[in-house]
Amino acid sequence: MLDELRSAARKVGSERSLRGLLIDCKRLLSERGEANSAGIAHDLVARFSALPDEQQGTFFERLSSDFSPDPKAVLKSAQAYAEAPNAHNLALLTQTTEPPRQELLRRINRSPGGTSSIVAMRRALLARVAKKPELQAVEADFLHLLSSWFNPGFLQLQRVDWNSPAQLLEQIIQHEAVHQIDGWDDLRRRLQPDRRCFAFFHPQLPHEPLIFVEVALLPEMPGQIAPLIDKASKPLLPSQFKVAAFYSISNCQPGLKGVSLGNFLIKRVAEELKRELPQLKTFCTLSPLPGFARWVRADSVCEGLPKARAQTLTEAHQALLAACGGDFDKITTAAALRTLNADASAALLRLGAHYLACHSPTRSGDPVARFHLDNGARLERLNALGDLSVKGAKQSFGLMVNYLYDLQKIEAHHEKFVQGEVAHSRAVSALL
Amino acid sequence: MLDELRSAARKVGSERSLRGLLIDCKRLLSERGEANSAGIAHDLVARFSALPDEQQGTFFERLSSDFSPDPKAVLKSAQAYAEAPNAHNLALLTQTTEPPRQELLRRINRSPGGTSSIVAMRRALLARVAKKPELQAVEADFLHLLSSWFNPGFLQLQRVDWNSPAQLLEQIIQHEAVHQIDGWDDLRRRLQPDRRCFAFFHPQLPHEPLIFVEVALLPEMPGQIAPLIDKASKPLLPSQFKVAAFYSISNCQPGLKGVSLGNFLIKRVAEELKRELPQLKTFCTLSPLPGFARWVRADSVCEGLPKARAQTLTEAHQALLAACGGDFDKITTAAALRTLNADASAALLRLGAHYLACHSPTRSGDPVARFHLDNGARLERLNALGDLSVKGAKQSFGLMVNYLYDLQKIEAHHEKFVQGEVAHSRAVSALL
Amino acid sequence: MLDELRSAARKVGSERSLRGLLIDCKRLLSERGEANSAGIAHDLVARFSALPDEQQGTFFERLSSDFSPDPKAVLKSAQAYAEAPNAHNLALLTQTTEPPRQELLRRINRSPGGTSSIVAMRRALLARVAKKPELQAVEADFLHLLSSWFNPGFLQLQRVDWNSPAQLLEQIIQHEAVHQIDGWDDLRRRLQPDRRCFAFFHPQLPHEPLIFVEVALLPEMPGQIAPLIDKASKPLLPSQFKVAAFYSISNCQPGLKGVSLGNFLIKRVAEELKRELPQLKTFCTLSPLPGFARWVRADSVCEGLPKARAQTLTEAHQALLAACGGDFDKITTAAALRTLNADASAALLRLGAHYLACHSPTRSGDPVARFHLDNGARLERLNALGDLSVKGAKQSFGLMVNYLYDLQKIEAHHEKFVQGEVAHSRAVSALL
Amino acid sequence: MLDELRSAARKVGSERSLRGLLIDCKRLLSERGEANSAGIAHDLVARFSALPDEQQGTFFERLSSDFSPDPKAVLKSAQAYAEAPNAHNLALLTQTTEPPRQELLRRINRSPGGTSSIVAMRRALLARVAKKPELQAVEADFLHLLSSWFNPGFLQLQRVDWNSPAQLLEQIIQHEAVHQIDGWDDLRRRLQPDRRCFAFFHPQLPHEPLIFVEVALLPEMPGQIAPLIDKASKPLLPSQFKVAAFYSISNCQPGLKGVSLGNFLIKRVAEELKRELPQLKTFCTLSPLPGFARWVRADSVCEGLPKARAQTLTEAHQALLAACGGDFDKITTAAALRTLNADASAALLRLGAHYLACHSPTRSGDPVARFHLDNGARLERLNALGDLSVKGAKQSFGLMVNYLYDLQKIEAHHEKFVQGEVAHSRAVSALL
Repeated sequence: MLDELRSAARKVGSERSLRGLLIDCKRLLSERGEANSAGIAHDLVARFSALPDEQQGTFFERLSSDFSPDPKAVLKSAQAYAEAPNAHNLALLTQTTEPPRQELLRRINRSPGGTSSIVAMRRALLARVAKKPELQAVEADFLHLLSSWFNPGFLQLQRVDWNSPAQLLEQIIQHEAVHQIDGWDDLRRRLQPDRRCFAFFHPQLPHEPLIFVEVALLPEMPGQIAPLIDKASKPLLPSQFKVAAFYSISNCQPGLKGVSLGNFLIKRVAEELKRELPQLKTFCTLSPLPGFARWVRADSVCEGLPKARAQTLTEAHQALLAACGGDFDKITTAAALRTLNADASAALLRLGAHYLACHSPTRSGDPVARFHLDNGARLERLNALGDLSVKGAKQSFGLMVNYLYDLQKIEAHHEKFVQGEVAHSRAVSALL
Repeated sequence: MLDELRSAARKVGSERSLRGLLIDCKRLLSERGEANSAGIAHDLVARFSALPDEQQGTFFERLSSDFSPDPKAVLKSAQAYAEAPNAHNLALLTQTTEPPRQELLRRINRSPGGTSSIVAMRRALLARVAKKPELQAVEADFLHLLSSWFNPGFLQLQRVDWNSPAQLLEQIIQHEAVHQIDGWDDLRRRLQPDRRCFAFFHPQLPHEPLIFVEVALLPEMPGQIAPLIDKASKPLLPSQFKVAAFYSISNCQPGLKGVSLGNFLIKRVAEELKRELPQLKTFCTLSPLPGFARWVRADSVCEGLPKARAQTLTEAHQALLAACGGDFDKITTAAALRTLNADASAALLRLGAHYLACHSPTRSGDPVARFHLDNGARLERLNALGDLSVKGAKQSFGLMVNYLYDLQKIEAHHEKFVQGEVAHSRAVSALL
Repeated sequence: MLDELRSAARKVGSERSLRGLLIDCKRLLSERGEANSAGIAHDLVARFSALPDEQQGTFFERLSSDFSPDPKAVLKSAQAYAEAPNAHNLALLTQTTEPPRQELLRRINRSPGGTSSIVAMRRALLARVAKKPELQAVEADFLHLLSSWFNPGFLQLQRVDWNSPAQLLEQIIQHEAVHQIDGWDDLRRRLQPDRRCFAFFHPQLPHEPLIFVEVALLPEMPGQIAPLIDKASKPLLPSQFKVAAFYSISNCQPGLKGVSLGNFLIKRVAEELKRELPQLKTFCTLSPLPGFARWVRADSVCEGLPKARAQTLTEAHQALLAACGGDFDKITTAAALRTLNADASAALLRLGAHYLACHSPTRSGDPVARFHLDNGARLERLNALGDLSVKGAKQSFGLMVNYLYDLQKIEAHHEKFVQGEVAHSRAVSALL
Repeated sequence: MLDELRSAARKVGSERSLRGLLIDCKRLLSERGEANSAGIAHDLVARFSALPDEQQGTFFERLSSDFSPDPKAVLKSAQAYAEAPNAHNLALLTQTTEPPRQELLRRINRSPGGTSSIVAMRRALLARVAKKPELQAVEADFLHLLSSWFNPGFLQLQRVDWNSPAQLLEQIIQHEAVHQIDGWDDLRRRLQPDRRCFAFFHPQLPHEPLIFVEVALLPEMPGQIAPLIDKASKPLLPSQFKVAAFYSISNCQPGLKGVSLGNFLIKRVAEELKRELPQLKTFCTLSPLPGFARWVRADSVCEGLPKARAQTLTEAHQALLAACGGDFDKITTAAALRTLNADASAALLRLGAHYLACHSPTRSGDPVARFHLDNGARLERLNALGDLSVKGAKQSFGLMVNYLYDLQKIEAHHEKFVQGEVAHSRAVSALL
């Protein structure tokens, strides 16, 4: 009984907080001068983050309903502009059609710590958008502004090594999403001179990396991930470096999802390494195929293919099915994959090549493949038994792939990919 | 004849350049991925700055005509949004109404050196807007984006002193706009411990100050500028510091005109000084009245005033006229101002008080007054014979004014000023 | 057979190396200009560190025999100086009596990396001096020069925290000698805002801490070490800081043994903390008594005492013996110490007080006590059950002690201690 | 009368100060622990620098008389060591023969600002040594210790450019001793990318350069100084750099006179430039011959020469005498030098070559020549009309010289020079 009362009181309290918050949003927007804005804005984000989860949701809904453009005003200014498309009418049009919440966010961004608060707000917002599609317009405004503020011109590339602050390294350990870092000793190996790590920072979040990439400097293009992340491996000498292999790229800020960072990072790092180590001739990745096993199992591998191709592919599919006795689950362990016969292995590579080369340009294509191919990389080589970890075996029957970054050709390859064509090596051609 | 041919050839060449430039603008905009954008953008700004002046003008006109929203599309999306104001229609509306040149500028900003290029482009644009009002819409887009990118959250406050790099100090000498700096020795005095200088920087322009302010630390509120900028004066000891007087604030980037920087700078510096020197009790300015003499001469001093006030003011005006024998030119020298009699001096102060207290809220009010009053400062004291330099005697018959920044009250004063009311001290009341 | 031959060959080779090395030492010494010195010196240290252990020993012996002053020349110049003690004869005297190896070391120190090499050489030398007392004169020259080069004026105090480079933190973990650091999480807790760590660096060894101290900021003087190094403890707020307790001080460079670093470090840190946190009123240590148990067991506790005192002490000794049934080994565990009765506990404190207050001024006194008392600290409080770790129980029956650094009185206390008197609190008086 | 009384009172006061100072010197020396030393030392240097000039002189005399080794003790320990030259006796010997003032200076050096104070004290001391030779022994101790503390291993090379702090640049302007810098514009030209400036710093004097060198990057070895220091000259492009010409080297600390800094600086800078600009093939100087005119006029040019040479030289001398009508004063202006006939010019070069090649190894040789030749440089080329400034015409009849630093051969050249032989080019051979 008492508990219910308390809970009710809390609810009333938080509803009152929310009302107050929205009033202050209006106040912040109506501030003509900028004198008070920073203070109001600072206050506002503190109060938002103190709101209970449910009220935060309501807040976003109110951002959608109360801070959108006024349809009537929009229509009127659009008509005026249609009749006389001059500077004055355009100014009016811009004013009436821009959602007022954009200006609200800009003013919040002006206060100390504002950028960081907006990134955090978007993180909370993204968690809700899936369930409430009407929040998409609000989300679009957040993304629009954050893309402008986190544009690559404002980002700072920083090398991360064993001389970096421990608090930064701790974040690297925590955010590594591709090949987990197993404590400080593992990290230490990954920061030796034949391994590199680079991160992007924004001046407004000086102590928080936005995204980072890990690179291995090697004598040749790698086919397996295990030796690259073996913490007991012996560092190579600079004279042995020929290839720079990007083997992991991880985002650190969920609130910046959708803001382009990775493609710039890879290119900046490639240029940086080329400058430091002119002996490097090849820049490539060693990448997973996270959606491969799912696609193989889905039985839609031949969808939309010309007959001849469909034929080959069906054969490969059947060869693999035969090898695992009709049950793909049987080949999702390192042990099973190691004992596959030559035919099955060949079938696996053939299926992988098709998955990447033909399926990637479609919307449902592999996300990692789409990322690198859209960046202008070339599909270079498929590697059987490349990742025999539990995850690797399950997601892609152990397959890994190298994408090649030929800095001279990335523009051309990117153009091709936009047209639906995937640049690939002869070795890959042979598999198709 | 040959010259004419050459000139014609040049013209043809530059027209071709312009055409190529505009094609690349379209290309940059249509780039789906960001892979190539940076390269195209980089190229584009280089070619813009190589254009002859006239073609730059044409370029801006084309930005206006060819990169504005399509009126028909705007109207259609406005109608759809008016009928069903949902997220989808709003997204469409936003897409169609935003001038494509905004996205163009955003993409330029992504390339290395992009921000700096856009600031330079706007400088060129501003020089044309006065003559070509149709460029205002283009200018508004530049201002809109630069305000977002140069928001105070992104600015870095830096103290400028005798330990600062010579290349920075050289820029300070060059950009000081209020009280000219007469070489390195003069500057050196202004950077002694009882004088301070602070500047705002943006991470994208690390070596160029955006705006800077000069401060004198004094035992009392100053009434005259000469002792403050006397390069032979003896530095005071910290124990004598009671008052921080902002005596000069200068913008360094013409391309950032209209982007709010000054008000944030003054407040950040006041906070910084308070932290370092808790003994400081008063933060004020010693400011010019650049429009005062013009206003006095204009014979419109009583415009729109209640009768009683108009009476007093007319008397003051006549007293001053009498003192100079009907010719204001006679009191625009230091010598003449020094020999004014008591009545004339009193009349001058009275006119000054009215000029600032009553005239400032109007659009034609003194720009310096409007800046400080809108920031939330209080009109504190008028000083006869405050600035006897040639410029000071001419612009304001030697009058100077102190604005007081009471950090506790700036919000309230600002609100008042927005309502048309000027906060002022009792001393000023007595003059009104 | 073959092995013997090989070993013999190696020996011949290393003997040849040593001979070459000594010739180059002479060559370095005879270099008039400094043009070539750096090169020769650089070469020389590389060759020294490549020598097998045994030959390094021989090298030091040769430094002793071949690089000492010539007795005859010394005598002659001493006689001349005795007859006419003028500037000329003094110059001659200085020249002949300074061991040439000093100049040798100075010249080595001039080469890049020279300082670091000399520190390493001394480390190797120190390991031999115990067995070969004739090397003491050589060792004295090393210490003399290193003391001059590592004088406190040349040292740089640096705060170590979670923002410090990982490679530095790794050295802290490795060198902590008093209360072992159990991995990165433990270290992290010791670098929270209510724990501090400071280290001294030398410009010539920029990446290697020389010595560091760990401090806990607490509401009161601590009596037990466990809560201070508990990695799960919750950090206190700055408003709770009243006492700064130095709970660990560790040297990192064995080659700098005997060079005074610790006393300067404690004083510099105390001043630094006082400046940052004026609310700190007490600076003290929480220190072990490493020699206490040994002393108690040695049965010499009353040696040289006046009768009355000896009586009290004997009683305490017997009380303790009784409590452990005549076998001190029985009270060297945490469990046993926790169950001691009041009498035994009192006896333990009494013995501890005597051990520190009376025994410290003697050469065989507790080294930690001698260090702090000679620094000018005051013996403040003894704490039973202060350190129940295995080491603490064994070395000192769990006893710990606070030394108080009263910055106003350290000079006076130091003077007293030099006279053989130990400054102590009333609480300690009561135990004596 | 009153004045005399005051002066007498002052004298008594300062004598008392001196007495107190000397007592504290003894106290500092007798301090066993280091706890109090820093305080006493700090106090001591403050009081020394407050002493009137005369008492400072007396202080140095007392350092000589009261802080020298005790002759009797010296003799006794020398005899003991002569009888048994073991470690113990050597320790004793070292103790008794080292002047106690060395330990005094070491202890002063331990206090904050101590190093800087000792450099200042030595400056005051050097000013007195010429007049009081008995102070030489004291001076030797200062030099001995400062050489140890300012050894090149402890020095930091720093590039000075237009980004350097103004306060540093101001010192460069002030200390340039060879070719005066005429204000900030002149300095600015000397810091453009085709001119370089490097300075040595010591960690204990972080804001004061010790010595700096100015370098011009040129397409060929320069023969004239004027174009190099012409502030209106246009900077060259990096592709034109072939030669690095050291055209000025200046000491900033008179108190460090005699401490080797310049030779290390030149070599470090040459290495640094070679690394940055691999296209540099030649490192040379453009140097004055400050003693040349004096030597020519002294009529001792043939002293000690073999007959054949003396003959040639006498002829050259007579040719020059003839050209100036027997009065060397007539050729000490730019105008006169420009009109010299071919014979006279040839005679001048011949005399210059002899002056440098044959006279330098002697003690009275040209100091600039001795500096570079002892560093291992080669005498490369003499340039008539190289320096037509007033100073250049007077000191050396306009002659300038290039010394060549061939980094591969400086050791060999230095060795030669120590043997009395000057390495020189064929062009110089031809003149001899």
